Parts: sequence; C-alpha cells; structure tokens
Amino acid sequence: MTPCRPVISVSTISRWPARFGAGFAASLCLAMATATAQEAYAPRELPARSIPVPADVSPQMQKLIAVPPRTNWDSVPQTPEAWRTLANTGAATAIQALPALRERLHVKVEPLLLNGVKAYLVTPEVIPAKNRNRLLVHVHGGCYVLSPGEAGTSEAILMAGLGHFKVLSVDYRMPPEAYFPAALDDAMTAWRAALKMAKPHNMAIFGSSAGGALTLEMILRAKQEGLPLPAAIGPGTPMADVTKVGDSFQTNALLDNVLVSTDGLCDSAAKFYANGHDMKDPLLSPVYGDLSGFPPAILTTGTRDLLLSNTVRVHRKLRQAGVEADLHVYEGQSHGQYGRDDTAPETREAFGEIAAFFDRHLGR
Amino acid sequence: MTPCRPVISVSTISRWPARFGAGFAASLCLAMATATAQEAYAPRELPARSIPVPADVSPQMQKLIAVPPRTNWDSVPQTPEAWRTLANTGAATAIQALPALRERLHVKVEPLLLNGVKAYLVTPEVIPAKNRNRLLVHVHGGCYVLSPGEAGTSEAILMAGLGHFKVLSVDYRMPPEAYFPAALDDAMTAWRAALKMAKPHNMAIFGSSAGGALTLEMILRAKQEGLPLPAAIGPGTPMADVTKVGDSFQTNALLDNVLVSTDGLCDSAAKFYANGHDMKDPLLSPVYGDLSGFPPAILTTGTRDLLLSNTVRVHRKLRQAGVEADLHVYEGQSHGQYGRDDTAPETREAFGEIAAFFDRHLGR
Repeated sequence: MTPCRPVISVSTISRWPARFGAGFAASLCLAMATATAQEAYAPRELPARSIPVPADVSPQMQKLIAVPPRTNWDSVPQTPEAWRTLANTGAATAIQALPALRERLHVKVEPLLLNGVKAYLVTPEVIPAKNRNRLLVHVHGGCYVLSPGEAGTSEAILMAGLGHFKVLSVDYRMPPEAYFPAALDDAMTAWRAALKMAKPHNMAIFGSSAGGALTLEMILRAKQEGLPLPAAIGPGTPMADVTKVGDSFQTNALLDNVLVSTDGLCDSAAKFYANGHDMKDPLLSPVYGDLSGFPPAILTTGTRDLLLSNTVRVHRKLRQAGVEADLHVYEGQSHGQYGRDDTAPETREAFGEIAAFFDRHLGR
Repeated sequence: MTPCRPVISVSTISRWPARFGAGFAASLCLAMATATAQEAYAPRELPARSIPVPADVSPQMQKLIAVPPRTNWDSVPQTPEAWRTLANTGAATAIQALPALRERLHVKVEPLLLNGVKAYLVTPEVIPAKNRNRLLVHVHGGCYVLSPGEAGTSEAILMAGLGHFKVLSVDYRMPPEAYFPAALDDAMTAWRAALKMAKPHNMAIFGSSAGGALTLEMILRAKQEGLPLPAAIGPGTPMADVTKVGDSFQTNALLDNVLVSTDGLCDSAAKFYANGHDMKDPLLSPVYGDLSGFPPAILTTGTRDLLLSNTVRVHRKLRQAGVEADLHVYEGQSHGQYGRDDTAPETREAFGEIAAFFDRHLGR
C-alpha cells in the first residue's frame, strides 16, 4: 500500500469552507495515493474560484445548473436500514412527479413480472410503424441502491415519450435486499425475457449512471453466456469505474452539483452494493472489461459531470476495440442533468440523439 | 452596458495567489457581466484545490499534463512589433523540432506558392493506393498570430505521417502583416488552388485551435461563394467563439496549462487579428454561423481543454443542423495536447481517428 502523499497542503485545507474539513481532504488523499504515477509530478494548484451559471444553455438548464451542490452528498448512511430509508424517502419524493410526467409525454406505465424479476412496461400513446416490433430495455440509475420501484422509471418515460419506443424498465433488486451481482442477475433475467418479446436486432439496452454501467455489464455478461446481443446500447454517463480513477473525479469535484464528489454518497453506495467484492471487477467497473464485439454505442455526458472522464474513457475503450461509438457532451451539465427536466430543449436533444441512434441501428 | 456584478467576492480574491490579482478578477468580472442570464443565479463557489496528474493516461501524456501553466500566458504584447517578435521567437524554437519529427514520421515538406499564397506540400514517404488521389488542406493554429512559416506545419506532418495522406498546409498571412479577414482570404485562395489539384469529394480540410476555427470559417465562406465543399472536415478544439462565452472558459481556467485562461494571450491575439471587427461575426466566431449543409465533421478536444465548451457547442450546432459530426474527447488533455508528442499513444489515436473518419468519407 502506497503511503498517503500530502497532495492537498495544510494551507490549502485551511482555506476550504469548514464543511469540507480535514476528513474530506484525507479521503481525497487516500484516493490519490492509489495512483502511483501521480507521485512523480506536482499537482496543479488551483485558487478558490466563483464559477457563474453558463449563459449559453436554456433557462431550464440554467435553473438546474444553478442548484447548489446537493445537501448531504457527503453524509453516508452507516447501516443497511439507513440506506433503505434513504432510498425509500427519495423514491417517495420522486414518484410524486411521475403522473404529470407521464401525462405530458403521453406514456403509460404497467408493472409486470419477468420470471420473478419486477419490471415496468412503458408504452407511448402513439407508436410509429417502424417502432412496432422494436423494444428497448432500460436499467435505471441510482448508484445501485437508490430509485427503487416506480421511481426508477423516469428515464424510461422520457425515452418512450420523446423517442416513441416501447420500453421495458427493470426494477432490479438492490441492497440491503440483495447484493452484487443481484442487480446484474435481475437485468439478465429481464434480457432473457425480452429476447422472447422481440428479436435481438430490434432491441437496444440503455440507462444512465449505475444504469449506464449495468448496460455495459449486461453486454459483458451476455458475451460470457453466449446470449444474443442487442443492436445498440445507450450507456449514459456510466459509473464505469468505481475505483476512483478518472481525472474529472478531481477536476469536476464540487462543480458537479448532483454527485458532487467521488468521496460522496454514490461511491459509498456502490461499495455497499459490491459488499466486499473487488471494485475493479469489470462487472462493477466495466471500463476494465473486454469491450470487443460490443454493439454500436451512444454515450452521453456533460462538461461538469463528475463522470465526464468515466464516459470519455469508455468511449475511447470502445473505439480502441473497433466498436462504433458516438459521444455527446452537453454544455455545463452535471451528472445526468440531460434527464432531469423534460421541458428543457437539451433533454429533448439528448433523447432525440439516442432515439435517432437507435433508429439507425435497430432492425424493424 | 450591464454594470459589473461582484461575481468574485473580495474574500475570494484575497485567497488567490498574488499573480492573479485584482486586475485579472476585474477582467473576469467584465467578461461575466456581458452575460445577463447569469445575474439571476449565484455562482458556484469552489475552494482552492490541488489537482493531481491523472494516472489513466500514457507516461508521455502525463508529462505534458504535468507542465505548469505556460509562463507569460497573461503577459500580452502591447505593440504590433512586440506581437511579431513573440511569433518569430516562438517559431524559431518550434522549427528546431521539425527535422527530427519529419524523419521519425517519414515525411517531406516542400514550400510552394498558390496564387501568391505561401503553403507547404507535406508528403509521406509511402502513400497507399486509396490515398493517391486524395488531398488534405491544413490550416495551422496559433491564435491567428503565432506559428508563421514552417512552424505551422507540425500538425500537417503528424497527419501526413500517421494518416498517410498528402497535405497542403497553408501559411496564411497574419498580423501585423495583415489583419482580418486576410487569414481566411489566403485559406480560400489555397482552397481554390486545391480544387485544381484534386476533386473536392477526395479532399478534407482540417486544423486545430485557430486552425479549427478557420476550417469552419472556410466552409461558411465557401457556402457564401458557391464553391465546392470538401467531403469532410476536422476542426480540432476550434476557437469557435472568441466572445468569451463558454462554460469551460471558467471551469477549466488555470487547469488548462496551454491556454490557461480566456483572459490570456490567445484571446488578445484574436482581438489583434480582428482589428476592431465584431468578434461575434461568424467568420471570427463560427459557432454563431449557419452550419447547415456542412460536410461530415470530426471534432477533437480534451477534458481539461479551455475550449472544451467551444468544441462541444460546435458539435451540438452541427448536429442541430443535421450534419454528421463525431466528437472525441481525450482524458486529462489541455488545449491541443493531442498534437504535442508524436510518440504518445493518444496522439496516434487522435490522428488515427481523424484519418479513419476521412477515409470513410472521402472518395478515391
């Protein structure tokens, strides 16, 4: 184990607001010490700064970007029950917005069971002829722990409503109910069920954050098991590396108002899900997997996204493996903000790009 | 004129190193005040930070990323002669590296005149059959003022050597010799000459930074003049907005060790070139141009690039105009660092992507 280098000087720490404190700096230091290559070079010293809300995005997106870093991002539940409470509380709030969202986007959502795995079938009111035989499988985000039940369907509703596809959204088990690889197991059960509902070349898999990682993990697992692959995938800002490697974990820390920092809630949630398993396993950190033979992929992120580096690294790995892969980076957006407000033009643009990509690659 | 809001508080300024001082803060303030939308929201307050060199890039790239912000980035020449001296001094240093670069990449460079415009024909030792009738036109970077003469050929040498294309690199006039739109005029003269050397559908135009902007400006001008367009373009990290609009001008300030800040040398150089002309003219800030009908484009940038936002905004504008456009963002790189070390795997990857994109889109 490499000893911790004082990459953050005491004088720097003293200039931080009290809430970031020495504990936060120490955990940053620990994360950095794992990367031996960094020891040869001095870090870049940045002064304190005030970063304005960008003027070149829509008013809706400005409003999202202006929100201060989420409170309690660094307050991590200490017991399985506390995690469950956090997830349920968040879900209770999230589902309040869903009826209006479904109505605005003319989408209906029906719960169903796929060989024992809970899921939702999300159906747009109007399905164009070219999409009648097509089906998208959605794996929701939430750091492998959050957004249980219906709360996980919002991205599926956006895709069904804006892209006019039928979407099967998987309500995979999460801790403390079940740990790694339960989420992936459930997603694979759903994929096997989907293979009986549509032809693989008429299907795509997509999701953001943990859902982006699960999308990649599903392809790794399908390759291992010799299952048919979908015609395309849409991993949005994937949690593709949960080992804290990636430059934007540092450069966008505290600038991203959703994830805020790799020393925050989300990485702790991933560790809670991993339950002691090696975080570098490609089924937890798919950037380390063999991405050859992957279907065409469309990746989405924002310039302020804490997972900007995760996303561009997966893009590069796919390209290095010879996979067709499109990258879309949206101005000023933090983690997953392209899916936060269905009225924002950037949201329509992002889902429009993904829908167009799927349309190009899926059979009919 | 909007009055300057104190977006950077006095207490924040007092925590900055002395070299950034109040003058720098005041110019930042002035830039921000032009964007009225920002006034409605509080800025994000970031503490001082130490950002380590990322571990997930090659040793060559780590070395480039570890270089401290270039000295004199904020020391702007005050007379035309001082600009000329700066350009010539930099060029004298740059050309010392060129003989070895040409030798390593098996490329020869011959000066020529194209209807009075200086240029260089850059030819690889081996040209594959598919590239014999193809020709790339290169417009170099350097903020419209730097890299005169042979110093502007390095990117053309990389493309010829790594992509095995013939490249015509335009040595356009720069201030104080000639001002806007002289650089673009010369590039267009070179394009008309190129149209007699190869078929337009066998050609592409590319360049980085000011060369990326010129690439876009050439297409805007060719559309205006009804000239044939190339089959593809490769605007690398384009200076597509010289009005200081773009979130990464703020978020990557002082993190990008090449351009360092929008209040530095490069923006001043662009203003020197513009010579009083409206900076928002699409022939200076092509992000504001009508990008419809553009050829397929491949855009390249890095996560620490001061022009990350410029690049992704052009990508979005192209996509919104229905243009096929690929975006490639490299981990941890500052402005134009994909073209700095021909031995770095990331350099070979970036030029390999551009060459493959051109190969897909160019006729033979």
